[in-house]
Amino acid sequence: MAEKILMKGNEAIAEAAIRAGCRLYFAYPITPQSELIEYMARMMPKVGGTFVQSESELAAINMVYGAAGCGKRVMTSSSSPGISLKQEGISYLAGANLPAVIVNVQRGGPGLGDIQPAQGDYFQATKGGGHGDYHIIVLAPSTVQEFADMAPLAFDLADKYRIPVMILSDGLIGQMMEPVEFQPAKTEEEIEELNNQHLDWCMHPNEDEPNHHHHVINSLELDPNKLSKLVLDLENKYKRIEENEIRYEEFNLSEDNEILCIAFGTAARITKSAIEELAKEGKSVGLIRPITLWPYPYEAIKKALHKNIKKVIVFELNLGQMIEDVRLAVEGKVPVKFLGKVGGLVFTPEDAKAKIEENL
Amino acid sequence: MAEKILMKGNEAIAEAAIRAGCRLYFAYPITPQSELIEYMARMMPKVGGTFVQSESELAAINMVYGAAGCGKRVMTSSSSPGISLKQEGISYLAGANLPAVIVNVQRGGPGLGDIQPAQGDYFQATKGGGHGDYHIIVLAPSTVQEFADMAPLAFDLADKYRIPVMILSDGLIGQMMEPVEFQPAKTEEEIEELNNQHLDWCMHPNEDEPNHHHHVINSLELDPNKLSKLVLDLENKYKRIEENEIRYEEFNLSEDNEILCIAFGTAARITKSAIEELAKEGKSVGLIRPITLWPYPYEAIKKALHKNIKKVIVFELNLGQMIEDVRLAVEGKVPVKFLGKVGGLVFTPEDAKAKIEENL
Amino acid sequence: MAEKILMKGNEAIAEAAIRAGCRLYFAYPITPQSELIEYMARMMPKVGGTFVQSESELAAINMVYGAAGCGKRVMTSSSSPGISLKQEGISYLAGANLPAVIVNVQRGGPGLGDIQPAQGDYFQATKGGGHGDYHIIVLAPSTVQEFADMAPLAFDLADKYRIPVMILSDGLIGQMMEPVEFQPAKTEEEIEELNNQHLDWCMHPNEDEPNHHHHVINSLELDPNKLSKLVLDLENKYKRIEENEIRYEEFNLSEDNEILCIAFGTAARITKSAIEELAKEGKSVGLIRPITLWPYPYEAIKKALHKNIKKVIVFELNLGQMIEDVRLAVEGKVPVKFLGKVGGLVFTPEDAKAKIEENL
Amino acid sequence: MAEKILMKGNEAIAEAAIRAGCRLYFAYPITPQSELIEYMARMMPKVGGTFVQSESELAAINMVYGAAGCGKRVMTSSSSPGISLKQEGISYLAGANLPAVIVNVQRGGPGLGDIQPAQGDYFQATKGGGHGDYHIIVLAPSTVQEFADMAPLAFDLADKYRIPVMILSDGLIGQMMEPVEFQPAKTEEEIEELNNQHLDWCMHPNEDEPNHHHHVINSLELDPNKLSKLVLDLENKYKRIEENEIRYEEFNLSEDNEILCIAFGTAARITKSAIEELAKEGKSVGLIRPITLWPYPYEAIKKALHKNIKKVIVFELNLGQMIEDVRLAVEGKVPVKFLGKVGGLVFTPEDAKAKIEENL
Repeated sequence: MAEKILMKGNEAIAEAAIRAGCRLYFAYPITPQSELIEYMARMMPKVGGTFVQSESELAAINMVYGAAGCGKRVMTSSSSPGISLKQEGISYLAGANLPAVIVNVQRGGPGLGDIQPAQGDYFQATKGGGHGDYHIIVLAPSTVQEFADMAPLAFDLADKYRIPVMILSDGLIGQMMEPVEFQPAKTEEEIEELNNQHLDWCMHPNEDEPNHHHHVINSLELDPNKLSKLVLDLENKYKRIEENEIRYEEFNLSEDNEILCIAFGTAARITKSAIEELAKEGKSVGLIRPITLWPYPYEAIKKALHKNIKKVIVFELNLGQMIEDVRLAVEGKVPVKFLGKVGGLVFTPEDAKAKIEENL
Repeated sequence: MAEKILMKGNEAIAEAAIRAGCRLYFAYPITPQSELIEYMARMMPKVGGTFVQSESELAAINMVYGAAGCGKRVMTSSSSPGISLKQEGISYLAGANLPAVIVNVQRGGPGLGDIQPAQGDYFQATKGGGHGDYHIIVLAPSTVQEFADMAPLAFDLADKYRIPVMILSDGLIGQMMEPVEFQPAKTEEEIEELNNQHLDWCMHPNEDEPNHHHHVINSLELDPNKLSKLVLDLENKYKRIEENEIRYEEFNLSEDNEILCIAFGTAARITKSAIEELAKEGKSVGLIRPITLWPYPYEAIKKALHKNIKKVIVFELNLGQMIEDVRLAVEGKVPVKFLGKVGGLVFTPEDAKAKIEENL
Repeated sequence: MAEKILMKGNEAIAEAAIRAGCRLYFAYPITPQSELIEYMARMMPKVGGTFVQSESELAAINMVYGAAGCGKRVMTSSSSPGISLKQEGISYLAGANLPAVIVNVQRGGPGLGDIQPAQGDYFQATKGGGHGDYHIIVLAPSTVQEFADMAPLAFDLADKYRIPVMILSDGLIGQMMEPVEFQPAKTEEEIEELNNQHLDWCMHPNEDEPNHHHHVINSLELDPNKLSKLVLDLENKYKRIEENEIRYEEFNLSEDNEILCIAFGTAARITKSAIEELAKEGKSVGLIRPITLWPYPYEAIKKALHKNIKKVIVFELNLGQMIEDVRLAVEGKVPVKFLGKVGGLVFTPEDAKAKIEENL
Repeated sequence: MAEKILMKGNEAIAEAAIRAGCRLYFAYPITPQSELIEYMARMMPKVGGTFVQSESELAAINMVYGAAGCGKRVMTSSSSPGISLKQEGISYLAGANLPAVIVNVQRGGPGLGDIQPAQGDYFQATKGGGHGDYHIIVLAPSTVQEFADMAPLAFDLADKYRIPVMILSDGLIGQMMEPVEFQPAKTEEEIEELNNQHLDWCMHPNEDEPNHHHHVINSLELDPNKLSKLVLDLENKYKRIEENEIRYEEFNLSEDNEILCIAFGTAARITKSAIEELAKEGKSVGLIRPITLWPYPYEAIKKALHKNIKKVIVFELNLGQMIEDVRLAVEGKVPVKFLGKVGGLVFTPEDAKAKIEENL
């Protein structure tokens, strides 16, 4: 068993990405994800990788586009305003069926906001911050360990479906130190194999390969019939992902639950503490924690809505965004309540417990 | 009564904006909204206004931020990819409580896509393409006349609530010529008055005013308690807007309807033709056309779901985006069906009629 | 006679430019010329002009290109590093025969340097900081009054020859306050007339004019024979300017001089004080102060080299740049000595006097 | 002896740079140097180096600044307008005493000009295209072989003096194919050694080194006394370079010469053909070909002006730029004549021969 190392979340995700075979990283600095870019700046040269602190967030996401078009494992990261600047590029990546990993260590917004943790970018991440019909896979970690584990997962999903994958973290998980156990680093041979898996569509120099075909990476298709075909192909891909890749955690679910909580990431972590406290008092409350925010575990929530459930409570570090997806699952069968904090404030386990108790 | 002028939608919205007192316009060209920027380039100097073709879409939205911070009626416009580039700026405008008008003449996406009409940016417009908790008012025209009428409406709403307002049009309405009747142009005195309405908070040179207070326009607040307060103030504003500004059109609604259609913009226009055809055949089908996409007419839809309604059908020029808001209103009471076209393709009245008939 | 107003040089040049009919100004802020941009920001709206603080120095110079292409009096300003960023644009303006005024309030360099006065950009200004064969007219003021007077002169020369004109000032003249008497402001009619003088070549909306010809403003000509013709036409223009527009000041020149001093701008001002002191002591020293740095007064220097002149001394706030032009004029006939200060340091009248005395 | 390979100049300089240990290259494409960037794009990954096609020329030169600040051999390249965009960065590199190699494959100008060969950037390269007092070493090749040989020379000079070195080529040498013999490629150990030579001043991660000192790379010094000291240190360095690094070629110099020709790069190559033709006819004409354009071989020219020389003729592919440096050397002792072509046109050996004959 591997040793556990005490690390900040921002460093853990960087280390895990390198171990997962990421050798290209392009970003522009922003708090509270700066340790991530700093770790990459320090380590990429040591593993023969490429680190570029680009001129801007736009330059970074377009460098990601270029590297992804060459079939390489590539990552960028930023925090909320910086992620907004990448929305055009994300839509382009999605439209061109390119695999890439984007980390958002969310801070309080809107606008410049502050540098405290928040979950205010849920809508942007899951409903298409960019233009046009597209989806990206969105993964939401709630511990440093899970943040690190999501690096290989994100790259695998990105490669499998040729789709951008966002890891939607927040300033708390990014800054917090926890012991992390890493998966073994990919060997050079394994990375070579990963890079070669895309040779049938990606750009690459022709001299290295017999039967070379010239590939074009593009999201432009001026013939609407052809573009329509491309978008319908995207839709089919999205359906396959919805069928196969929904991930969530069930916590303390039982027929005794009268209240079902839904929360993701840091908010879920705090809500669990409240549920554990309530359990000690003999009060049975369940939690579903979506791990993929897109595709969303609508069915898991529907299934959990057994006859004893009187209410659903959604906990978020925003004004109420995921609650829409919860309401789409609940379809008015029981009331859906909400506890939120904004501006970088984080509700406490006591806040969550009180909210649950007032609804019991 | 004013004369009707045959004009392209892109020109009509430009002319209407100038008549509404807009004297500042910043944008970067993109098809299919180029006639808008060209009209502004030609006319702004003639009315003593300022036109800047900026270095980029980012520059344009940040110039909008600057002008809005001075309390002036200011507009920008673009089409889908260009609107993605403005998302950081839009979040900043929202966070700083600034009035501004943004026109999106949508094209097929994602990515570069094509230059044909589409409605693929519904999610981006209504669910926060930018980061953080915020809303902008979104208006969706379905004729050239309505497009033009939305200019004064958008500026009035922007000023009233100090909020960015997006007019979410598409390439069809932008390019189509229809006779338009304009509201009278604001006089210089009226514009002066409009500009002065914001003197209590906006930036302006101190020498012109007794008892001058120094105003700071900002979306940065590093103290999370204060930022939380700002965001909760935003939330209160959004509630007032939801209470007062929901707009929609009811078309052919009656107790006889067995099917309720929901569509906006160009899709609504086509659906109406289908409904009219069906009416000639004695088939009663109703339509709710949301005019404000945010705030959304959930209640109007709920109210229209009388006991005879068997099904709801949503028509969109995308893979299904507004359908989520419809489903939030319907809450599973009846099945919600969908007809969409993507990639710049537009369904015909016959397509819509067939879709309705197969559900009757 | 007009009233004298006590003003900073940076404000005086701004006011003078507005009076000269400049209604378009684009710039990005930098010390020590910030008062200039601030004055423009405040005053341009009051005179119906356009002020844009652009996204960058590059954006500003390209906005100047656009406005100049429309035949309007347009100005930008910056300080040393910002002027470097404009070099591509300046070459484009020159190549397209466009009139424009560029103010450089020089600071200490190279690189970021400091914000103290310097004359280190002489080479850049006079020998083509940009690429290709071109010249711009360069004017060097040595008082606030002269700085102000150069605004109308620069615009007149720019218009007359369709050429960019740089006013090469420095942080001392920019920051210093002196009483200034302004030339009368151009009336709206006069500005209209100025704007109309370029209608035969500039871009303008066709509807305003009978017999409209479509004009193209460009510096691209892929046929080398045609490009050669364009460059030779430029050369002819430069010859006409050299024949007609050389300006310089003779100070204390006489047959008694044994030493001839050459200095421009702030350096000349200080050298004059030294010469006046020496005159009180009965020592006759002359000065030629080039006012146009390009075209350069080679002949005036040659003419002043009468048989009694034993030495020439060049005074500059740099490591020795103009001295090359002086040596081109002197052609080895007498020794050419040099006193310079760098890094934002300014030599004193005593320094200059001592330098002269050690050569007497 | 190494094999000769037939290559374009643009490819030869790229290959030679890699062999010289350059593992970092940042650039934005422009004709006529595109083969250079393409070669680097293809080869850098194969040698474990980093290639970035940056967002702009500005981004590229600032990436060069970053890499140079880490003590690595780094290169950028462009053609005339793109080099203008790098002038701020070049001044920063010079001000911060950073080694770097910049290749300019000149095209016809000014402005966009054309894509044919020219020498119109002589002034920009040698007199400081950027702001402030600084020099860069400028090397001018006249064959593909010399172009290639200049890569190791340029890196060695850059490292030795911590100074930017420009190789001032033109479209003819860049596009022409000639057989090239390369110097042996540096081994990994030699590159490691090269990279380590700057550890006493450059930025590097502290963990790799005992007695680590924190280094700051900067061109900002707000105290004018300290900045003055920095600039005077630069001046001392420039003097050492002038004493040690002047390079030039003497061609057919003899006491019989009545005419001395001066030309560099492509112009020199053509002039040599003319001189050889004249020699066949028994006419003795000499040539000095400056190889370093800064520092300039003034003394070599002075020395060559023996009593039989009646005239000096300067040949350039511009309107006459280097002629100023020639005149500084000649100091009026004999007439200085000029033959130039502009706009991408190139004079022929017959043109040069005729020019010489009309002055014999």
